[in-house]
Amino acid sequence: MITLDDIHAAALRIAPYVRRTPLMRATALDRPPTEASLWLKLECLQATGSFKARGATNRLLATPAAELAGGVVTASGGNHGLAVARAARIAGVPATIFVPTNASPAKIDKLRKLGAKVEVVGSIWNETNVHALAFAERHGAAYFHPFADPLVLAGQGTVALELLEDKPDLDTVLVAIGGGGLITGMAVALKALKPSIRIIGIEPTGSPTFHASLAAGAVVALDKVTTRVATMACAKTEPAVFALSKDAIDEVVLVEDEEMVEAARWLWFELGLAADLSGAAAVAALRTGRLRLEAGSNACALVCGAGPEGLAG
Amino acid sequence: MITLDDIHAAALRIAPYVRRTPLMRATALDRPPTEASLWLKLECLQATGSFKARGATNRLLATPAAELAGGVVTASGGNHGLAVARAARIAGVPATIFVPTNASPAKIDKLRKLGAKVEVVGSIWNETNVHALAFAERHGAAYFHPFADPLVLAGQGTVALELLEDKPDLDTVLVAIGGGGLITGMAVALKALKPSIRIIGIEPTGSPTFHASLAAGAVVALDKVTTRVATMACAKTEPAVFALSKDAIDEVVLVEDEEMVEAARWLWFELGLAADLSGAAAVAALRTGRLRLEAGSNACALVCGAGPEGLAG
Repeated sequence: MITLDDIHAAALRIAPYVRRTPLMRATALDRPPTEASLWLKLECLQATGSFKARGATNRLLATPAAELAGGVVTASGGNHGLAVARAARIAGVPATIFVPTNASPAKIDKLRKLGAKVEVVGSIWNETNVHALAFAERHGAAYFHPFADPLVLAGQGTVALELLEDKPDLDTVLVAIGGGGLITGMAVALKALKPSIRIIGIEPTGSPTFHASLAAGAVVALDKVTTRVATMACAKTEPAVFALSKDAIDEVVLVEDEEMVEAARWLWFELGLAADLSGAAAVAALRTGRLRLEAGSNACALVCGAGPEGLAG
Repeated sequence: MITLDDIHAAALRIAPYVRRTPLMRATALDRPPTEASLWLKLECLQATGSFKARGATNRLLATPAAELAGGVVTASGGNHGLAVARAARIAGVPATIFVPTNASPAKIDKLRKLGAKVEVVGSIWNETNVHALAFAERHGAAYFHPFADPLVLAGQGTVALELLEDKPDLDTVLVAIGGGGLITGMAVALKALKPSIRIIGIEPTGSPTFHASLAAGAVVALDKVTTRVATMACAKTEPAVFALSKDAIDEVVLVEDEEMVEAARWLWFELGLAADLSGAAAVAALRTGRLRLEAGSNACALVCGAGPEGLAG
């Protein structure tokens, strides 16, 4: 589906339109969440507030103008939608973003500020997506899949290039999983450049898509998705995506929604970072002790999205 | 009062207790606020949420334990108070923080979470400070002045060392002014290491302490302070502080409170940064066009403090 070359090509293509986000060492903490040296990749400071700007921009820039003339459409819990809305704005075409009913009001508001038309429909992503696909068909709009698109995967994979440039001796990377686009794009780059690196995925207990699929050895469709974290709710990933990352992911750690809320509060209190709940998922895995890393390890937790969730309470 | 040597000593002393904050290039913006290359020093990600941790920690670590036995006290619009509360916690002694009545509820809450006793009294810092000084006298507590203390100044100056390490070709630095400790500490380091650098101060129109003092050529006591930005409200700086920075500051730009609110919203929308209003002041000077920088310039705006102010609206 993609190789390291696609990710290098994506990095060149999107460079003028995305931000090189900082990799910050998390020191001076009241109670460090791990004995490892912890680094935070601040994708919450990326354009549109998450890494999703990388994939959506890569998809946009690799698409012929004629295919974009009818506008752009997607289905997204929020972050990919924001990224697609901005991509459409760069191209000067209209964007229609379908979001599930549990999408955060702050993100819906931001979508509108980016000039997108927002359609709220469906309780989880897979339902919402049916409507987005129908819209694309009806209006001749270009549909940008949030994760099962080689160009989107390659764009997300560029995060990994920056990580290894900034900190070549990282040995462990913690990545939140929704549909699996980020972890898969990153896994392709990381395993090509540094096969020894450990890749840990984090999912909500209420949406263990990859956890279940890895246990089964094949893509599993979950009976139900109960997490209220819209950006991580996904009943089923795509086989082509899963095939690329299933051997690369060392472990998937499950965390409760409330543990992500607590981690988001901690990121705000200790680090001044306003992360959304998926952005706090990797830290939650450490804060809860569900994932233990040894002293001497150099671990990176991706703070993959921005949000106000940690600022209250 | 202080020299570059004091700032180097501070950097060594505080290194285990503070965070090396990122210097991020502000690219991929919808509408860049300046034609210059803009870099943001993210002191909003510093321990306690602002640069103030540097000065307070330096003051603490240079103070004999016997002098700390009666606890620590200060008067602060919020950020210095947080930094002193944390410093006291490091030393294991009680902290009492006097805050003016316009201090933000979020910061008062955070002070309490850091274990400090909070006293709300006085409408501006200078009034509040009278009560803090009386408390220090009465209880034998160590009083940490927010800006007129050589150790505090030297601690704040360490920001400048990091800036020039990370980006030696910076030519312009934008720094918000409250009492003047940050700009003065930084000015000592910057002018020693790179005399050509331009230092621009930012004050609220409702608290133009340095602006008025520079115009008069000597410290001016303002008749009234009308800004509602507690961290920048100060009727009068100290002559010893002013003496150190008056020749180093190239210009002081005044911004309205509402312009800082707008800049904080912009930092959140465009960059995922939750800055308090003083943290947004430097960006406000650019966003409003009150400060214009030429193309080709490498300018750094200090995002000096974290807060929720930009997340609403």
